[in-house]
Amino acid sequence: MIDKIFLLEQVRVLKNLLRWTLIILPVSIAIGSMVALFLWLLHLCIHFRFEHPWLLYFLPLAGLLIHFAYKLYGKNAERGNNLIIDEIHEPGGGIPKRMAPLVLLSTVVTHLFGGSAGREGTAVQIGGSIAQAFSKWFGLNDKETGILLTAGVAAGFGAVFGTPLTGAIFALEVLTIGRIQYQAVFPCLVASLIGDLTVSAWQVHHTSYRIDAIDIPNYFDAYFSLNPLLLIKVVIASIAFGLASLLFAQMVHRMKHLFLSVFSKTWIVPMVGGLTIILLTFILGKPDYLSLGVDAEYNGAITIPSAFQAGGADTWSWLWKTIYTSVTLSSGFKGGEVTPLFYIGATLGNTLSTLLDAPVSLFAALGFLAVFAGATNTPLACTIMGVELFGGEYVLYFAIACYTAYFFSGHNGIYSAQKIGIKKLDA
Amino acid sequence: MIDKIFLLEQVRVLKNLLRWTLIILPVSIAIGSMVALFLWLLHLCIHFRFEHPWLLYFLPLAGLLIHFAYKLYGKNAERGNNLIIDEIHEPGGGIPKRMAPLVLLSTVVTHLFGGSAGREGTAVQIGGSIAQAFSKWFGLNDKETGILLTAGVAAGFGAVFGTPLTGAIFALEVLTIGRIQYQAVFPCLVASLIGDLTVSAWQVHHTSYRIDAIDIPNYFDAYFSLNPLLLIKVVIASIAFGLASLLFAQMVHRMKHLFLSVFSKTWIVPMVGGLTIILLTFILGKPDYLSLGVDAEYNGAITIPSAFQAGGADTWSWLWKTIYTSVTLSSGFKGGEVTPLFYIGATLGNTLSTLLDAPVSLFAALGFLAVFAGATNTPLACTIMGVELFGGEYVLYFAIACYTAYFFSGHNGIYSAQKIGIKKLDA
Repeated sequence: MIDKIFLLEQVRVLKNLLRWTLIILPVSIAIGSMVALFLWLLHLCIHFRFEHPWLLYFLPLAGLLIHFAYKLYGKNAERGNNLIIDEIHEPGGGIPKRMAPLVLLSTVVTHLFGGSAGREGTAVQIGGSIAQAFSKWFGLNDKETGILLTAGVAAGFGAVFGTPLTGAIFALEVLTIGRIQYQAVFPCLVASLIGDLTVSAWQVHHTSYRIDAIDIPNYFDAYFSLNPLLLIKVVIASIAFGLASLLFAQMVHRMKHLFLSVFSKTWIVPMVGGLTIILLTFILGKPDYLSLGVDAEYNGAITIPSAFQAGGADTWSWLWKTIYTSVTLSSGFKGGEVTPLFYIGATLGNTLSTLLDAPVSLFAALGFLAVFAGATNTPLACTIMGVELFGGEYVLYFAIACYTAYFFSGHNGIYSAQKIGIKKLDA
Repeated sequence: MIDKIFLLEQVRVLKNLLRWTLIILPVSIAIGSMVALFLWLLHLCIHFRFEHPWLLYFLPLAGLLIHFAYKLYGKNAERGNNLIIDEIHEPGGGIPKRMAPLVLLSTVVTHLFGGSAGREGTAVQIGGSIAQAFSKWFGLNDKETGILLTAGVAAGFGAVFGTPLTGAIFALEVLTIGRIQYQAVFPCLVASLIGDLTVSAWQVHHTSYRIDAIDIPNYFDAYFSLNPLLLIKVVIASIAFGLASLLFAQMVHRMKHLFLSVFSKTWIVPMVGGLTIILLTFILGKPDYLSLGVDAEYNGAITIPSAFQAGGADTWSWLWKTIYTSVTLSSGFKGGEVTPLFYIGATLGNTLSTLLDAPVSLFAALGFLAVFAGATNTPLACTIMGVELFGGEYVLYFAIACYTAYFFSGHNGIYSAQKIGIKKLDA
């Protein structure tokens, strides 16, 4: 019944998948190990700063250090994630090997002195840079290099957040707005999985989040499986999440331009950025918006986990974190955007849950996912991330929040190298 | 900070989304209502046959009836799902209104007399046909009609299985192998959601499945969050699931050709098909592989839910269901392929769990999803379906199973109208 040719096709598929598995294995173990080292150093630095808060005063100097490190040794590594996206779309000069150690160290320095930044950019750049190096050693052609780079992004992302499936989907989805292609799906899945397993083999663990059981009356219980009232609240909140993504992406882009147009010497920019952060912290009188925002510096600090509880965030926490992070990143400090986006989303979700009389932990989770989805244009990856981090019960709300935010966040996300496949107005 | 133009874009997006919501609302309420009617009739017919098993003897005559109904009144409705996929890719003569009632009634007749078939084909055709009718009434252009048809597929699928998110992703993913485009993502989400809500408003309920808590030792517990041994077993099983998809799709295609080449009169084919089913049931001495396979005809019958328990399926149940369903569908009876694919997958998963010493309910669930993913080339939709039906805990295994099966199922799935975007060997 079955054609010989068909089984031959399966054998070819099997060979191809085994070949890619063998290629991916060392690459993603290397990426996972470096990400584990990064997460471990980050944890040390953040807690060291908690014990020595005066380190903040050296933030301008730290910025200067990072600035000159990139200027003297960086080559084109300064372009970060955008360089990787460009190289996947159209291979050019390649990604320099030095990008991985440079971004690792400068992110750790940023956090040691209290800069407000994230982790995913660093992990993605570690992934891209290591993948590029292996690609040269293995003598892969341009097309294969593109696939390996995509897998490197998947490994970095999956490893840093402990979300392997999200890592794979993110790497495929982030390249082009409005389109996912399965070109590199298998290498991405393997890479992300091995990257995550490597981090857990190094005994580095991730923060776990929890959505409380929701106990609100559903007046339509007799008719609908879903709560239509809650659904409408989710949509309204998600439009706000999308606008918060837009605000964040615009602030980062425009503040960078502003800094460069005001100061003729580029090395002044990180000094001014660092001073601004110090000033803001004085004005607010608390260090909550510095650094990563995951672990608490003191009892009662506003963090991502605290935003999942009633009263765990101030009304304007999301705006302060937006300002802190855009100042930090646009003045040349290093790190990712994603953890700050989680912070902005979770705290905004907390605020909106009060306004809309909605369950706090659910809305914090929706904000966490949706602001990230809007800013990076990866609604599907963020929906999956919701399942990997918070469980599957609310997957439909996750998807609605992520896609709604995606539609309202505009076409200029945080990655300017992203291509536009399908315009949002057409969707 | 924010450009006026940017907020104008958001207003245009909002207008566009509201416009589509207004268009989709009546369409998906109509589709959901007709699907609810279909599910209700199906339930009645299946249980009526349970009480009157002699109805099986009339299966050949029922086939004859369906054959002439389509010959005399069907126009091009006979092409079913493929016609809808074609019309979405390239609008042509449109989908006839009569497709919806014809496929509904003929599927109900197929099940009343014991034909082995599913439901999703029927629901998708109801969705496509109703969407086409509304599109004409609303005076939509070709591009908009394509979007509305896609949304109709989403509404039908989401409504029939009670899995709204899966419905939307399925409609986007099924069109082209290896590519998902967000062209119609918003209308699909709304349509699928409203379709599902409509079914639940009509008080029609779906079968629920459950994966038992897995209690197997993970020898690597100290090192890895995942169980590597289980992972390898999942991959091996999923290659088998992919080959089962390939076998199913090939059997349906080839048996149709065989029937048409052997019998000069086409009306003989359904008679022969019906007689074959009767004969097979005599040989096996039990009615387990007739009809849908969800509810049990007697205590101890092999059904999809029974396959989730140890001993709940025979070693070759999956092969018998493959034969029953390909005979039924290739001889002109109506219904979908998906529920039989669920049955084949769950029973094969049950068998493999014994062979591989793996948890039964998990492997039944993986088979359930993966055989369907392989046969329809929709691995992402099936991963999401896993979350919607079984919860999010095993989402990574769901994805690995669905993508592995997808790679091993070849390029000729059950929908011949599906285009190839990215070849599997390239992925």
